[in-house]
Amino acid sequence: MLLDRYRAVRSFTAGLCKRLEAEDCVVQSMPDASPAKWHLGHTTWFFETFVLMRAAAGYEPLDTRYAFIFNSYYHAVGDRQPQARRGLLSRPTVAEVDAYRSHVDRHMQSFLEEAPAKPFREHAFVVEVGLHHEQQHQELILTDIKHAFAQNPLEPRYHTPPPVASAASARPGWLPFEGGLVDVGNASDDFAFDNERPRHRAHLEPFELARRLVTCGEFVEFIEDGGYRRPELWLSDGWEARERHGWEAPLYWRQADGRRSLLTLGGRLALDPGEPVCHVSYYEADAFARWAGARLPREEEWELAAVRQEVAGNFVESGRLHPSASVPARDGAAAQLYGDAWEWTASAYHPYPGYAPFPGALGEYNGKFMSGRMVLRGGSCASPATHLRPTYRNFFPPNARWQFSGVRLARNLL
Amino acid sequence: MLLDRYRAVRSFTAGLCKRLEAEDCVVQSMPDASPAKWHLGHTTWFFETFVLMRAAAGYEPLDTRYAFIFNSYYHAVGDRQPQARRGLLSRPTVAEVDAYRSHVDRHMQSFLEEAPAKPFREHAFVVEVGLHHEQQHQELILTDIKHAFAQNPLEPRYHTPPPVASAASARPGWLPFEGGLVDVGNASDDFAFDNERPRHRAHLEPFELARRLVTCGEFVEFIEDGGYRRPELWLSDGWEARERHGWEAPLYWRQADGRRSLLTLGGRLALDPGEPVCHVSYYEADAFARWAGARLPREEEWELAAVRQEVAGNFVESGRLHPSASVPARDGAAAQLYGDAWEWTASAYHPYPGYAPFPGALGEYNGKFMSGRMVLRGGSCASPATHLRPTYRNFFPPNARWQFSGVRLARNLL
Amino acid sequence: MLLDRYRAVRSFTAGLCKRLEAEDCVVQSMPDASPAKWHLGHTTWFFETFVLMRAAAGYEPLDTRYAFIFNSYYHAVGDRQPQARRGLLSRPTVAEVDAYRSHVDRHMQSFLEEAPAKPFREHAFVVEVGLHHEQQHQELILTDIKHAFAQNPLEPRYHTPPPVASAASARPGWLPFEGGLVDVGNASDDFAFDNERPRHRAHLEPFELARRLVTCGEFVEFIEDGGYRRPELWLSDGWEARERHGWEAPLYWRQADGRRSLLTLGGRLALDPGEPVCHVSYYEADAFARWAGARLPREEEWELAAVRQEVAGNFVESGRLHPSASVPARDGAAAQLYGDAWEWTASAYHPYPGYAPFPGALGEYNGKFMSGRMVLRGGSCASPATHLRPTYRNFFPPNARWQFSGVRLARNLL
Amino acid sequence: MLLDRYRAVRSFTAGLCKRLEAEDCVVQSMPDASPAKWHLGHTTWFFETFVLMRAAAGYEPLDTRYAFIFNSYYHAVGDRQPQARRGLLSRPTVAEVDAYRSHVDRHMQSFLEEAPAKPFREHAFVVEVGLHHEQQHQELILTDIKHAFAQNPLEPRYHTPPPVASAASARPGWLPFEGGLVDVGNASDDFAFDNERPRHRAHLEPFELARRLVTCGEFVEFIEDGGYRRPELWLSDGWEARERHGWEAPLYWRQADGRRSLLTLGGRLALDPGEPVCHVSYYEADAFARWAGARLPREEEWELAAVRQEVAGNFVESGRLHPSASVPARDGAAAQLYGDAWEWTASAYHPYPGYAPFPGALGEYNGKFMSGRMVLRGGSCASPATHLRPTYRNFFPPNARWQFSGVRLARNLL
Repeated sequence: MLLDRYRAVRSFTAGLCKRLEAEDCVVQSMPDASPAKWHLGHTTWFFETFVLMRAAAGYEPLDTRYAFIFNSYYHAVGDRQPQARRGLLSRPTVAEVDAYRSHVDRHMQSFLEEAPAKPFREHAFVVEVGLHHEQQHQELILTDIKHAFAQNPLEPRYHTPPPVASAASARPGWLPFEGGLVDVGNASDDFAFDNERPRHRAHLEPFELARRLVTCGEFVEFIEDGGYRRPELWLSDGWEARERHGWEAPLYWRQADGRRSLLTLGGRLALDPGEPVCHVSYYEADAFARWAGARLPREEEWELAAVRQEVAGNFVESGRLHPSASVPARDGAAAQLYGDAWEWTASAYHPYPGYAPFPGALGEYNGKFMSGRMVLRGGSCASPATHLRPTYRNFFPPNARWQFSGVRLARNLL
Repeated sequence: MLLDRYRAVRSFTAGLCKRLEAEDCVVQSMPDASPAKWHLGHTTWFFETFVLMRAAAGYEPLDTRYAFIFNSYYHAVGDRQPQARRGLLSRPTVAEVDAYRSHVDRHMQSFLEEAPAKPFREHAFVVEVGLHHEQQHQELILTDIKHAFAQNPLEPRYHTPPPVASAASARPGWLPFEGGLVDVGNASDDFAFDNERPRHRAHLEPFELARRLVTCGEFVEFIEDGGYRRPELWLSDGWEARERHGWEAPLYWRQADGRRSLLTLGGRLALDPGEPVCHVSYYEADAFARWAGARLPREEEWELAAVRQEVAGNFVESGRLHPSASVPARDGAAAQLYGDAWEWTASAYHPYPGYAPFPGALGEYNGKFMSGRMVLRGGSCASPATHLRPTYRNFFPPNARWQFSGVRLARNLL
Repeated sequence: MLLDRYRAVRSFTAGLCKRLEAEDCVVQSMPDASPAKWHLGHTTWFFETFVLMRAAAGYEPLDTRYAFIFNSYYHAVGDRQPQARRGLLSRPTVAEVDAYRSHVDRHMQSFLEEAPAKPFREHAFVVEVGLHHEQQHQELILTDIKHAFAQNPLEPRYHTPPPVASAASARPGWLPFEGGLVDVGNASDDFAFDNERPRHRAHLEPFELARRLVTCGEFVEFIEDGGYRRPELWLSDGWEARERHGWEAPLYWRQADGRRSLLTLGGRLALDPGEPVCHVSYYEADAFARWAGARLPREEEWELAAVRQEVAGNFVESGRLHPSASVPARDGAAAQLYGDAWEWTASAYHPYPGYAPFPGALGEYNGKFMSGRMVLRGGSCASPATHLRPTYRNFFPPNARWQFSGVRLARNLL
Repeated sequence: MLLDRYRAVRSFTAGLCKRLEAEDCVVQSMPDASPAKWHLGHTTWFFETFVLMRAAAGYEPLDTRYAFIFNSYYHAVGDRQPQARRGLLSRPTVAEVDAYRSHVDRHMQSFLEEAPAKPFREHAFVVEVGLHHEQQHQELILTDIKHAFAQNPLEPRYHTPPPVASAASARPGWLPFEGGLVDVGNASDDFAFDNERPRHRAHLEPFELARRLVTCGEFVEFIEDGGYRRPELWLSDGWEARERHGWEAPLYWRQADGRRSLLTLGGRLALDPGEPVCHVSYYEADAFARWAGARLPREEEWELAAVRQEVAGNFVESGRLHPSASVPARDGAAAQLYGDAWEWTASAYHPYPGYAPFPGALGEYNGKFMSGRMVLRGGSCASPATHLRPTYRNFFPPNARWQFSGVRLARNLL
């Protein structure tokens, strides 16, 4: 079963890159993004380093120098190509990286078929981590190539999106919660990242959560009300970021002849006021919320709503790769809670009380990033469905805009 | 009574600058620091702008251009000299700033003497804010001049410190707390900043707090155990900061011929292993805690201990201007909780549930800095005693080192 | 005949890129370098813009957006992709750029076959400029890919160099010149760049020129004599560059286990003491000369020697793509004057007296770079033989190291 | 006699700083500028280091640490405070620097009175260098404080300028020169810097030189003709500098309500169209010349005109500290050749043929700056009259604007 999942996840990654030209796979459009080729190699290196080199007797790496090239940030397993310089490496070529993937896949499949029960359990866990890791990079392949294509005056398209059936859109509105002393975090036996654990108590005041994501139309109102020119709406760091980067609208928005359009993975589209806004930073989300007389939800508040709903929505599997206008949710439920766009929360990404990192080098996976980042929840139109959980915590610096990051409002209830 | 306090605070500020040469008052040693002269003017501008211009009929500013020069970051009241360029202004001279202070003091005293009861209450509050504001700048005058002097190969001294009686030092040890559902934040009628309010509930797991601050001697052990060379001890952002700035010890530590010394406001001193370590960043505090098998306290944990103790310690009034070795505390109490060194907490500086900023332009005082900063608690040897409370929240970016910022450890109790 | 030359030059360029993978053609390793793909497109754009669009009736561009992408620095013909961001463009792909080349070649061939005699003369000149322009980019394709490959821990090879017959190497020594009032610059009817004209007079003191280029062995002596640690040998700007970039040897030199090697287009080679040193900046060349008790030649001095010798040497056509040890020159001649390595001169790149730029947009070709650059003479192992002349002036900023730039010494004769 | 000159130069420096407040003496407004206090100390350190420490038996420095603080760029005599950080040093105070000056002056006077004839000649030369060095810093004191004051919204005035008699202004026009083989450079026995020597031959084509400096009125025409928006007028490096710094007019020009004014050492003045333009970079001077259908003179051309005229003009001694409208010159002479504003030449600052630096550490004085700088000639309204000669070469980077640098045009004569 793990083998099946291994095959499924690995081939999904390969499929994502099928639509790219070899040239596309080389480009690194900013230090935060990586070339597609690097994602293909790095996810492979993960299995090689943390499974095959440790557990598969007699495994020989295809090229020992790949360990340097494809290590991302694991100090415990050696030196690495600096992140900002990944785009300088034309070699290994895409074909060579594909050969590397095949080499590792072949050995992983033997390993997974032959592994004896006992010592295997520990490695099975690492394989599980590796698969979730690869799913994270599936999303990054899409957001990184979107960013790269957006730098190109030719405006290349990644794909031709499937037609979307038009439907009645969810009305705005609020969903009330009593709060009080609640349990949050993950306590299940199933896979969860270390940062989702342990389950613990938190106290919440009564609050309400918006029934759907903030739309592009609402964001246009914010802009036209001077949202990007009124410092009183912004956090100080956000205002500085706005000035430094010259932000006047979400990333990928364009304006010409008085008409707004968006760059998407399917090419340039006219702005649809009913779609969720995305590609905003935490600072913009926060400023919008202040302008709207609301605030961003705390991550515990979001989780309280999410545990009551099933993990369903507009994920990468829909093939749309773009947020959709919300469909009315059933009573007591919030629309778009999963998928469409990651939702910035008001919570800094910090350890839960009693947090313990994964043992060994994998302890570097999540724990060392617990400063300077904000939590996002819920997944996006580029997230694999099987990757998400109500307790899942994503995290990015507050000025990051190249993820599918959107806004859900919250308010205090007196 | 407010008038008495006004006179006391204002003259204390002036006294702090008496020991400086005119030349010292001009220097800005880094963008985060300000010239002493600017502190003198800015605190005065605060009263002029928020009290006299609004409430004192017929008040005429001494020089209308000072509003530009001495505004710090209040967008609502106009443009300003960029923070990083305050050190370029040789004028107004120290004497001219003194004249400005006298001008405003004269009018403030009339205002405070003559103010009718009714509409005065609102202004009294602003005066109160202005006095606490000035006390914050008293501390900054000291930390900024310390930083400026440290750039100078002549190693100027700010003062000659009084002799310190040697005493038995507090033993390390831990103070246990049950946690549970607790109330934190300020609910009193007395003055408190908006960021300390409202009082609200938080849930804490059982924990223990170190009985005293981490000492220089303990920090030397960390260094000698490779603390600054082991990435596994550091947050990722902290490791980057360490590499970028070349940190190998706390700020102001020097090493020559195998002997460690410290630059202090009283000149260079041999390192005393029993003194609290200070001038460390959040990242260093966090790395030290990880190395020590502990963690930093959450701000609610710190407050739980602090409400039980009186606000007493080594403050600016002691005239020492340097942390002292801890004196044993009575049973059930923590030494050095107030004074000596600000204590980095594990808490991001975020709004409390239900937070509402001060009305008007004063709403920019605290609220807009609620991202990218960590909370520090307890005051330092440069803080005025009357400025502190158990609920007081100080905040700085995690890489700041020029404040008297130290470390108290905490641990989970199972 | 022009058509023959057109075909020859264009196909030579294409041939240079045949050895590259598609991925190699995308990478821009620093702002000064360009992707091979961009060189292929830009040289094509040159003919499209300056010939076909102006003179070929009814010519239609393949893609009008290429004008933006492939314009280098010609303000007169429109906006352009910023130079430092050429590596962000994965599209057009290599295949698409090839199609662009074919499209333009087809039209250029028709144009050259059919062009009527009269108005053609003017265009023939522009075609000539375009061919010399393309030859310059042939050299840049090689130096830029060499730089890109040097960033890669896999150390890719561009080619397998042909075997070199070992031969007696030229002895060092000096070639004396009387100087006096001499004529320099180009006065011929053949093609020359505007910056080589007009022919004019200069006065030279008696001098002597080294019989061959400075060798790697001699440069090792400089290094081992502390050349990179002695500020007294360096220009002030050079010393700053050395400190900022951490220079300790020429670019592409590596040292491991006490052995020196070089990265070349043919892979890593052990350092050969008899080869000319190259990939040094002007600053290093100047410091070496000072250390050697000599100086760099003025460009007029170099030209005086060069006009007496035929343009022959180790050029790109030899296929070696690396400087060779010098072969003894005949009496009265200097070895390696052409080919092997460009020779830094002591002359700033300034206009000759009476200089007039090419008319129209081509006036931007050379003239606007006449500040901040130093003149290099003689061509290199990556220069096409038909591209050079005794009066040819190459120019680069004094800190540039990625060209095949070497050192010939000169001295005053009393 | 040398003693008289020593006293005169030294007291003139002190006099220049009398008009400054202590606070003014601390500020460093950019890395290229230095605090007045530092100039006072550095010029003193020069005599201490190069004369007293070497030749005055038993001389004891006042404070050995001043050697670090006041060394500018002499590697041969030890380490130094980084140039960009001179403004961080509030100590030594102005009074302490005055004491340092007195200490050195006392010893220098004894030394000059008692020095025996024989070995003294060599030291006399160094004293001479030191006095010319101090005169250079007199000019820098003025240009640096002008720059510092210009950063201040209070617009402090350095002085109240004397009234200027209005006079008929020189008409524009051209002064022809035959050129040919000429001798330039300094061959006299009197003091000259090493960079003015040796006298040597140069060949010049026939040319003409403008009879006066370019005026502000003419520069306004350039601006209004789009001079700062037309890349075809600019060198490539100049256009980049213009974009990077946002240049739209010479430094210190202000525009409000459609009226142009200038910041001067005497405060803000309305722009006088008849005054020479100054505070332009080489790039602006070059662009203006191109716009005017002319060019900048080569330094040899300038010198040819200058040797025929006496060194007279609007120097620092006039007390005006601002360029004056030109007064008609006698036939065959050029107005404003000396004084008013330094004149950018088209010549890179390179060594003359046969150049030999001063021996010892003083060899670092001029020689190591012979790259990346352009030659300026003629002195300015801030230069001491006794400091100048027809052969005098000043030099600054092409983007420098804070000196009194102006423009004289030249043209080729057919």
